[in-house]
Amino acid sequence: MKREATLLELVQAGAEPAVLSAAAASEGVEVEELAELLAGGRAVIPAAAGGRTVRPTAIGAGLRTKVNANIGTSSELASAEEELAKLAAAVEAGADTVMDLSSGGDLGELRRRLLGACDLPFGTVPIYEATTRARERGGSVVDMDIDDMFRVVEAHAEDGVDFMTIHAGLTLAALEELEVEGRLMDVVSRGGAFMIAWMLHHQRENPFYEEFDRLLELLARYDVTLSLGDGLRPGCIADATDRAQLHELGTLGELARRARRAGVQAMIEGPGHVPLQDVERNVRLAKELTGGAPFYVLGPLVTDVAPGYDHITSAIGGALAGAAGADFLCYVTPAEHLGLPNAEDVRQGVIASRIAAHAADIAKGVAGAAEWDRQMAQARKRLDWRRQIDLAVDPRRAAAVYGERHSESVEGCSMCGELCAMKIVSEHLGVESGEFTGC
Amino acid sequence: MKREATLLELVQAGAEPAVLSAAAASEGVEVEELAELLAGGRAVIPAAAGGRTVRPTAIGAGLRTKVNANIGTSSELASAEEELAKLAAAVEAGADTVMDLSSGGDLGELRRRLLGACDLPFGTVPIYEATTRARERGGSVVDMDIDDMFRVVEAHAEDGVDFMTIHAGLTLAALEELEVEGRLMDVVSRGGAFMIAWMLHHQRENPFYEEFDRLLELLARYDVTLSLGDGLRPGCIADATDRAQLHELGTLGELARRARRAGVQAMIEGPGHVPLQDVERNVRLAKELTGGAPFYVLGPLVTDVAPGYDHITSAIGGALAGAAGADFLCYVTPAEHLGLPNAEDVRQGVIASRIAAHAADIAKGVAGAAEWDRQMAQARKRLDWRRQIDLAVDPRRAAAVYGERHSESVEGCSMCGELCAMKIVSEHLGVESGEFTGC
Repeated sequence: MKREATLLELVQAGAEPAVLSAAAASEGVEVEELAELLAGGRAVIPAAAGGRTVRPTAIGAGLRTKVNANIGTSSELASAEEELAKLAAAVEAGADTVMDLSSGGDLGELRRRLLGACDLPFGTVPIYEATTRARERGGSVVDMDIDDMFRVVEAHAEDGVDFMTIHAGLTLAALEELEVEGRLMDVVSRGGAFMIAWMLHHQRENPFYEEFDRLLELLARYDVTLSLGDGLRPGCIADATDRAQLHELGTLGELARRARRAGVQAMIEGPGHVPLQDVERNVRLAKELTGGAPFYVLGPLVTDVAPGYDHITSAIGGALAGAAGADFLCYVTPAEHLGLPNAEDVRQGVIASRIAAHAADIAKGVAGAAEWDRQMAQARKRLDWRRQIDLAVDPRRAAAVYGERHSESVEGCSMCGELCAMKIVSEHLGVESGEFTGC
Repeated sequence: MKREATLLELVQAGAEPAVLSAAAASEGVEVEELAELLAGGRAVIPAAAGGRTVRPTAIGAGLRTKVNANIGTSSELASAEEELAKLAAAVEAGADTVMDLSSGGDLGELRRRLLGACDLPFGTVPIYEATTRARERGGSVVDMDIDDMFRVVEAHAEDGVDFMTIHAGLTLAALEELEVEGRLMDVVSRGGAFMIAWMLHHQRENPFYEEFDRLLELLARYDVTLSLGDGLRPGCIADATDRAQLHELGTLGELARRARRAGVQAMIEGPGHVPLQDVERNVRLAKELTGGAPFYVLGPLVTDVAPGYDHITSAIGGALAGAAGADFLCYVTPAEHLGLPNAEDVRQGVIASRIAAHAADIAKGVAGAAEWDRQMAQARKRLDWRRQIDLAVDPRRAAAVYGERHSESVEGCSMCGELCAMKIVSEHLGVESGEFTGC
């Protein structure tokens, strides 16, 4: 083979590439430990070959649960400046990765501007651009051939995209399950819908499934991490965990194993909408069916009734999913189900998802997770406001809420004023006065 | 006995008081079913004797998980108008009950104004007022005698308060456990701190424990529901579920049984701060130790590091707690740990808590819970925006987000614009065009 070895191949061969060591250091784990996870397909480090400098970020079993922020234009709202602002908001709020899901405006130009402004691992869903191009040529979303699809994948790889969602497990057989089962909401994955439309229109198997080796060869050449999309993810809790979804999940597991054998890192995408009582079972099942591949969930939302607050419905599901073993949470913003998010929605979405990820990390026993809370508790007990704000998941917001209600006349906060439980108890338990600053 | 029979006594005697039937109807359960829960102490209907009309609201096993909103002044911020606005925000956002935790301004006057403006079950924590009065008399929080405490309880009962938090299980023995165990944050319950200060200062047992029969006689006279406060609830996840907390919980279970025997409805208050992996265990333990009494949790917060977003940390814990059997969620607002909430914080807190309660109700299998989601899914599939907004947990917010981004040129939303998955799939799956309105 003429191409360079991929990160996965290097690690499988026992090498210690710089990106591996850097990711291990940033995670606080031993290089050998991370190498073993990577070689076994239980972790990925999305960092494509090419000149772009990317923060080394490992995603997988036992590591800190990571958070992705989706940005991107739609055909209705396509402002490059707004997308750059959303990228900045995501980075500032602490996202670990970013995906550009644009489907409006000059897609290539926008992607390259975003890539140039971003040092986080960067993902895309190439089929969006493939269908957009088909429409630009005057056709419908199905008016493209297989080469058109692969051409877009290669264009994204050339631009330096680190990971790509490709719905390669959405087969004709899975579609049959969907038709047999019946669903309230059929298909809500946009990429999934494009693939299904193409398959039904052309009466052909999914090209990314049928020509999966060709796809792997292409991804290996650029060392792109494959994120196996779940085109049949449920769109409401009533549709969760049905035959169609499980069929696709089984295929994704098989494709993940094939990817690893071809030197391509792979992770698995998951739902979506799942009622609370099924989240843990869902994650465990996914891990089993995919040989422990990193599991990347969208939310999941534990109820459908809260448009305007789906960052919260997702934080509930994401925390539970993370605790059960999901490795990577795709955020959901307050605008979900209502419209394209703006920069403030992005900010809210990232923070909510980081809270979920951290709650999960405490449950998982990720090194250092509970220590963060311990430090906050100590600062709180000392009524050390500066330290509490520094330690907050969103210091800017904490400072703003505290600042606008804080009175200089008391050392505590305006909630209890002079009647601070901690102060009263410490006085009466006879704690050294130096340990408390008042309230 | 000279007093009227309480609701509990009537139901235990086989009567069918109007408030019972009304609560059963509003819950959609059989009167007999609710009567059995009430008689066995597994549900309460807080509705004190007296002229005030209160929405009949049952809280307990198998019923819809209820949401309480705490409002009230502090010594730093004491505006009656602001509290009335917060009450209105809580009611409008869909709270099931309200508690007035005021500790600043004219407490009696404010309470009566709030009671006059509120048809929800209304709760208070009388010890707050008792200590405030002690301070007004020029003393410290401990400068009161036992009669002072009982006098305030009676004053609240006379005003028509439906339920009261009283920290009767916080005994000298529990305090010993606290001192043996050691904690990062000792005591964070304000009422608990007052009781401890009093007990240590006077070197006496908790009067509400020692004179519990006197308390029950007083509460029975006005038919006030007793909410047994957890003065030793943990203030950070590191302190969760320790010996002190469990000791107090055991006492609360015993007191709840005594209350029921005295004709007084009782519920049990719980944490607080609990790491995600311990929430279910914590709730099950509480239910066991208290004979299945209604369990009323504050949050719980699954992490300490998110000041400014504790409505979200609490929604995660509250959803899990509810799914595990907690019956009643006390909301937490975004201002928690930073300052006194304002009306907008109240609104955010109620909605987040309602989302958690509803996610729990789906998990519990509460009648009608999943049906709400099913209707939303159907409206979403039909792209029926008006119906989606009507069904939203917060229609005002949903309408605002949708409205500001909606373009008249597409029938869907601005997120996907023309590229709506549901539309594409339905076209290609050959669904009748009448079923879809586009996007």
